[in-house]
Amino acid sequence: MSPDANERTAIDIAEMRSLANFDVTAVKMELRGGEMEWRKRRNIVDIISADSVFDKSQRPFMSRLERYQRAMAMANRIEELREQLKWDEREVDIAYSLCDEPVPLDLHTVAFAPVLSSQASADFLKEYGSLIRYRGVIGAYAQTELGHGSNLLSLETTATFMPKAQEFEIHSPTLTSTKWWIGALGRTATHAVVQAKLLLPSGQDMGPHLFFVQLRSLEDHKPMPGITMGDIGPKTHGGYAATDNGFVRFNRVRIPRSAMLSKFANVTEDGQYVKPPHAKLSYGGMLYIRSIMVSSAGWTLAKAITIAIRYTSVRRQGGPPGQEPQVIKYQSVYYRLLPILARAYVFIFLGRRMHTLFQSMSSRLSSGDTSLLTETHAVTAALKVLTSSSATESIEIARRAMGGHGYSAFAGIGRLYADQLPSTTYEGDNFVLDKQVVRSALKSLRTLRESSSRDSSNLSPSSEYLQCLESSTPLASSWYNPARSISLLQRRAAFLIQNLADNNSEDAGVNQRASKAIAEAFVAARVGEILEGFRRMGIRERDVLRKLFLLYLVITVEDGLADILSFDLLPRDPKTRIRSDPTASLRAIINRLCLELLPNSIGLSDAFGFTDWELDSALGVSDGKVYEALWERAQLEPLNKETVVEGYTEHIKPILQRGQRLSKIQGKL
Amino acid sequence: MSPDANERTAIDIAEMRSLANFDVTAVKMELRGGEMEWRKRRNIVDIISADSVFDKSQRPFMSRLERYQRAMAMANRIEELREQLKWDEREVDIAYSLCDEPVPLDLHTVAFAPVLSSQASADFLKEYGSLIRYRGVIGAYAQTELGHGSNLLSLETTATFMPKAQEFEIHSPTLTSTKWWIGALGRTATHAVVQAKLLLPSGQDMGPHLFFVQLRSLEDHKPMPGITMGDIGPKTHGGYAATDNGFVRFNRVRIPRSAMLSKFANVTEDGQYVKPPHAKLSYGGMLYIRSIMVSSAGWTLAKAITIAIRYTSVRRQGGPPGQEPQVIKYQSVYYRLLPILARAYVFIFLGRRMHTLFQSMSSRLSSGDTSLLTETHAVTAALKVLTSSSATESIEIARRAMGGHGYSAFAGIGRLYADQLPSTTYEGDNFVLDKQVVRSALKSLRTLRESSSRDSSNLSPSSEYLQCLESSTPLASSWYNPARSISLLQRRAAFLIQNLADNNSEDAGVNQRASKAIAEAFVAARVGEILEGFRRMGIRERDVLRKLFLLYLVITVEDGLADILSFDLLPRDPKTRIRSDPTASLRAIINRLCLELLPNSIGLSDAFGFTDWELDSALGVSDGKVYEALWERAQLEPLNKETVVEGYTEHIKPILQRGQRLSKIQGKL
Repeated sequence: MSPDANERTAIDIAEMRSLANFDVTAVKMELRGGEMEWRKRRNIVDIISADSVFDKSQRPFMSRLERYQRAMAMANRIEELREQLKWDEREVDIAYSLCDEPVPLDLHTVAFAPVLSSQASADFLKEYGSLIRYRGVIGAYAQTELGHGSNLLSLETTATFMPKAQEFEIHSPTLTSTKWWIGALGRTATHAVVQAKLLLPSGQDMGPHLFFVQLRSLEDHKPMPGITMGDIGPKTHGGYAATDNGFVRFNRVRIPRSAMLSKFANVTEDGQYVKPPHAKLSYGGMLYIRSIMVSSAGWTLAKAITIAIRYTSVRRQGGPPGQEPQVIKYQSVYYRLLPILARAYVFIFLGRRMHTLFQSMSSRLSSGDTSLLTETHAVTAALKVLTSSSATESIEIARRAMGGHGYSAFAGIGRLYADQLPSTTYEGDNFVLDKQVVRSALKSLRTLRESSSRDSSNLSPSSEYLQCLESSTPLASSWYNPARSISLLQRRAAFLIQNLADNNSEDAGVNQRASKAIAEAFVAARVGEILEGFRRMGIRERDVLRKLFLLYLVITVEDGLADILSFDLLPRDPKTRIRSDPTASLRAIINRLCLELLPNSIGLSDAFGFTDWELDSALGVSDGKVYEALWERAQLEPLNKETVVEGYTEHIKPILQRGQRLSKIQGKL
Repeated sequence: MSPDANERTAIDIAEMRSLANFDVTAVKMELRGGEMEWRKRRNIVDIISADSVFDKSQRPFMSRLERYQRAMAMANRIEELREQLKWDEREVDIAYSLCDEPVPLDLHTVAFAPVLSSQASADFLKEYGSLIRYRGVIGAYAQTELGHGSNLLSLETTATFMPKAQEFEIHSPTLTSTKWWIGALGRTATHAVVQAKLLLPSGQDMGPHLFFVQLRSLEDHKPMPGITMGDIGPKTHGGYAATDNGFVRFNRVRIPRSAMLSKFANVTEDGQYVKPPHAKLSYGGMLYIRSIMVSSAGWTLAKAITIAIRYTSVRRQGGPPGQEPQVIKYQSVYYRLLPILARAYVFIFLGRRMHTLFQSMSSRLSSGDTSLLTETHAVTAALKVLTSSSATESIEIARRAMGGHGYSAFAGIGRLYADQLPSTTYEGDNFVLDKQVVRSALKSLRTLRESSSRDSSNLSPSSEYLQCLESSTPLASSWYNPARSISLLQRRAAFLIQNLADNNSEDAGVNQRASKAIAEAFVAARVGEILEGFRRMGIRERDVLRKLFLLYLVITVEDGLADILSFDLLPRDPKTRIRSDPTASLRAIINRLCLELLPNSIGLSDAFGFTDWELDSALGVSDGKVYEALWERAQLEPLNKETVVEGYTEHIKPILQRGQRLSKIQGKL
């Protein structure tokens, strides 16, 4: 007897898994940064996933208060394990990342501690460094206000220096000056770094500066005098549910002079302002967050695509009963999913390079060398926009490719989306950053044009695509050669910027398109370099990764066709018959690469190395038994607790009885 | 003294409102179907919004059980009001739509009742018609199974005719045959229309047929013997939270022979099958739902865009303090929002035409005339895909244009998205429908080519775009002439289909692009007709609507540029200097139309006629006082109930104490 649809799923995924023609473990080690790092991680996964504090089975049914309490319980447990097992910072980071959602303590690690360590004075760090490291205080970073976000100059909170008392007075003069959205501030943080306008005794407004403010008592966690705080309420799609994004108002709150973060700027005892040596020395923090957003987007995508590829490999639909294909074998499905798989890989490898770039800049910055700042700013801004927008969009594409069951919360992709979504807005709204990216590109173009020799050979990586305006080499003829796509993407970016510089454009969408083009040209060049780096690997692994990265390149070209064709950059194809369509060979290579990658798709997603516990998805279970998993989870739904639902007597019975009575009356008429 | 940022918002929206240069009420009446209909609606809005059962203030904090109970309480209240105020069906429909989210009773109205009225025998309707009308029974429509959705032939549930007992036995033979996703079935419905394979005593499988099955006792609401039911759990992003999508398993449940829906097909007493006169007579129900999805997408978009336009008109950002522009005046913002405003208008007017088309088909169908079925199927499939995908995408664009605060649940757009999202999957997955749309287009092309005269004059509206393959008239030269865009969109669709018919395409995304092109060509032609219809209106109203609809057309062309340029359909622009860019004039008209519409944007969104209660958005309040509204809503967050959050002692205090202890140890080392 042939297996029923339910049993069939386990067979399907096992068969797909067996098709991988490369060493999955070898690729996994490449992705995970080597065997040491991988073992360290697996060890922590084993500990955390066996611990009931981290149980996820009730999460879909919890209120925000319960989600928050669970998050704090997880943090407490991690800090306990840190002490018991002598975890280092890296191990603690891994443990927090396994919470599988943003938790309040993240803000301490990602924003509060780094800002203090880069902006606070040595004296301050001597006093507080160790407390901060061990969470003896819990911190928030309070910048955004109800009325203003990224425009620092318009922030209204004031810090007025009081020379007599040698104190600053922190004050919120208006409703709109209320700090808002501040992660971990609503209910958790004991301290915050607060952005406020520094007002000198002379009345002079020195613009935004950073101050260290105690928010809650270390005795009983009650708000300090003059401070009104709370949680700002739920977020879209239930994202960041466990994080207490909060508001705070300061009513003339006094802090000591030493509480100003004064590594670079300072106020003397007699109220004189000490200027920082370089205006942009305070940018490090934001660049740090942007630089880690690339990897983070990649790993989130990796989860989403693992789930989607597994489910579509076992879901069968269409065609005569008993002979239905696995849905991943439909063109419309693999064409949507495999490019996302490629994107996840690219973002992960790219993220590692961003990390390196940030480290170099940061170590130079700490010695006052700002030479890498402009380049790092340009690159992280462009990539922040590209990866956050693209990851968000791709997660939803993956979810939707799973059809009806993809709309179940148990599919596990929706929550990834909800938590990824604000990355398009925080740390610089993508549409605001687009303009900065384009402005910086226009400046590079001017510099290039003004240089006497118009020498493009020493352009920085963020603007090397402008080279093609100076020297035009013929386009590589085969799509199998990555140089063809890389060059097309660089030309698209260069012509967009050139066009923008030379024409009085009335194109309202151009900044968005140009910023994307610039970022994609940069990534394409890096993809070329990463491909070169694979030479160390085995031939089969190299082959499959080469195809995957090629797919990334050609899909990016396809997505940019409107501008590529506008500038007539793609040679018309002589082969096609009706109205020579220059895109036909591009479409064909995409389809062929997808088909070549398809047998390896389970292998390539297995290589991310997620356990079922990490994915927490009924549709992404590694054994393929998706229908049993859906069934079991549905039985936990609290609505199912009573045989007859609570509220039947009050709300449902009256409807039925009224209807029965009315229909009898009606029947008699 | 100049007003502070908070007071400024009310002034800003009032000023924007005063800029409208047309009669907002006149356009409102056009949108709302005339004054009678508008007054009827407003009357019901007044009644419902004043009734505490419909209060929305606690909704963002409710559990699913509470959301469900609230939904049933609302339904009970509406049914009570129906009786008291003698509401007709239209008034009841309006009242349900004001619930502002999907509620279980919707399924009764949209799926259960219509299927019965079109497929059940006259005898059946005599017995049950009135009970169904007055909700003396509450119904569900049970088609989808755990293992299969749209592929009816693969459904596993069986209905075996038992001639001795003159009964059918409804049975779920496998786990995957469990009915799943069935709205209102989880906890509410007393009855369901069930899709099941009809098995005759001869053993013959007659394929899927419909049966009327009692699920719960009318005495105490307990499941009937042999029936296992429950809710399937939460949905992505908390969508459909108040609806009990459910599962059901049948263990050899007996129903009488008369419970088969037998208007067309039937089984005789001795187990003989009576064939329906036309195989597709049962399609009506699905087409009905698809036809109303167009309007529904339009009105949801209308809500989202009203909120986004209002907020971006009062939010100021960027530039020196005190001189910050309203964000809607930034290119990157109005370029995203005004096309959505246009789309909302187009979908609303288009929806009215779909309603008319469906009514004609339906009345013909009830007399066995299937002549309009193919056309209605083609049109509703294409438009279902286009409007559901486009509405979903546009809602998110509108939300994201609101920046940081757009991620607050109080923005009110997220829940619109969450509830709109499954429309891309239900009633035919969009990617499956794409293929049907293309198949039907290829068939029309073959028919056209095979007709001796190649006469394209009597093509049906769904394929009239193919005309341009036969006779090519020159393209209108000005973008201000709608004919230019309409013709370009028709040519794009026609060339895509022709290319697909004649070339052995290896293009994995072509069905998706071609289906969209076909739908957009159809809509563009309708937009042209609707524009003609505005002749009855005043000159100023006509002018602003003409610009709005023109914007819809040119934005649609811009979105389709990749294919338009691939087929070289857009003449190269002689004016531009560097690399003649054929799209420059298109980009310019888009920007100009946006700028011309901008002063009317508040007026055009006011014309939808939503009250603040209907929008339920802190950022969309009509008086512009968004910061006060955000502040007030945050105070309701249950996390803020206690001064020190519940769980402090268990989870937070230990973290702080441990950290303080460790940092002291560390300090000593």
